[in-house]
Amino acid sequence: MSIESRLDELGIVLPAAAAPVASYTPVVVEGGLAYVSGQLPFVDGALVTGRVGDDVSLEDGQAAARACGLMIIAQLKAAGIDLNNVKRVVKLGAFVCCTPNYTDQPKVANGASDLMQDVFGEAGVHARAAVGVPALPLGAAVEVDAIIALNPT
Amino acid sequence: MSIESRLDELGIVLPAAAAPVASYTPVVVEGGLAYVSGQLPFVDGALVTGRVGDDVSLEDGQAAARACGLMIIAQLKAAGIDLNNVKRVVKLGAFVCCTPNYTDQPKVANGASDLMQDVFGEAGVHARAAVGVPALPLGAAVEVDAIIALNPT
Amino acid sequence: MSIESRLDELGIVLPAAAAPVASYTPVVVEGGLAYVSGQLPFVDGALVTGRVGDDVSLEDGQAAARACGLMIIAQLKAAGIDLNNVKRVVKLGAFVCCTPNYTDQPKVANGASDLMQDVFGEAGVHARAAVGVPALPLGAAVEVDAIIALNPT
Repeated sequence: MSIESRLDELGIVLPAAAAPVASYTPVVVEGGLAYVSGQLPFVDGALVTGRVGDDVSLEDGQAAARACGLMIIAQLKAAGIDLNNVKRVVKLGAFVCCTPNYTDQPKVANGASDLMQDVFGEAGVHARAAVGVPALPLGAAVEVDAIIALNPT
Repeated sequence: MSIESRLDELGIVLPAAAAPVASYTPVVVEGGLAYVSGQLPFVDGALVTGRVGDDVSLEDGQAAARACGLMIIAQLKAAGIDLNNVKRVVKLGAFVCCTPNYTDQPKVANGASDLMQDVFGEAGVHARAAVGVPALPLGAAVEVDAIIALNPT
Repeated sequence: MSIESRLDELGIVLPAAAAPVASYTPVVVEGGLAYVSGQLPFVDGALVTGRVGDDVSLEDGQAAARACGLMIIAQLKAAGIDLNNVKRVVKLGAFVCCTPNYTDQPKVANGASDLMQDVFGEAGVHARAAVGVPALPLGAAVEVDAIIALNPT
């Protein structure tokens, strides 16, 4: 099954690829790897802001991480990459805006990780680092960047 | 000398490779590089928790970073990688849970960096980024991820 | 025009490449990529310290990020890399020491991103992640690391 069909089957509509909020580009492909800039969580066009452990619940944090993952996929497409050419999701970096005593960053980040496995299957199983941070761009609750291996075309 | 012999010589017993605490995998190999997920510090099976500059001393932070490094090596082995095939430790990313006025993250991270050089010699000399964070998974004091170049097999 | 001539044209004098503040090396080249360690901002030889949103203004934060970018370029040179062999600035990671309610990390990081485009032109357009952190080595206001693709030599 193609990845686009898989997205349809999962009922996933990719968001519009967000323009970079600054002087960089969303995706650079080099040496067979697509380096995807840190993506912020947009749900229905609105940025998910706040702090997990305070005004953002675990569930909302997971949904935000998933939204970051969807934006990563949307950015790949917007960069002209056929999603069927994704060979492997190599690494995700998840930054969770949270209170200093919050320790469930891995559960939050699973929102993005589970999405990758839902969409890409075995090729979606990746290495990951998840950490807490005190502040993210535009007040976002979560930011996720990615390294994605592509098949030769 | 083989790396396993070097470990013996150093009196190092690798920890049991920890299972991921979430929906990801510890190691992805792609394009000759092993991307190792962020590893937490287990000493004698117990997670080292706390905050450097508060309830964790510099020395304990260094020991925690070293434990993260040992877990990186343990994860490579658990992924079926012969440690003699490590060509170069390319990059370590060290996240130190610390107080906002703590500035010795490099000294803390040296716990992992020195280990890599002790074990792999010249091949263990790596690039690194070390930063402070307010919170880490499970309350860990340090988290370290890695990119490791492998010889072709 | 050579990159060195471009630096002259821009009136840029690269800083002396800073020695690592700990047990690592500034640059590792592997598989055609130069991995540059997290660089701190030195302006006229003095480290820019403080916290954006508190005692560091946006403008000073941007200048600090630019100084990190200059140090990245200086480290490439110091590692024996001809700047004309820079194929592409692939990824920057920007860590901004800031207050918990600060949300303009992207504007701060632009100090480094704009520099890369000024110096390397199209080859300087990169992927990026920018996040806030509570504390950086030596009290630095900004830290930036990089992945740089090199032409085969």
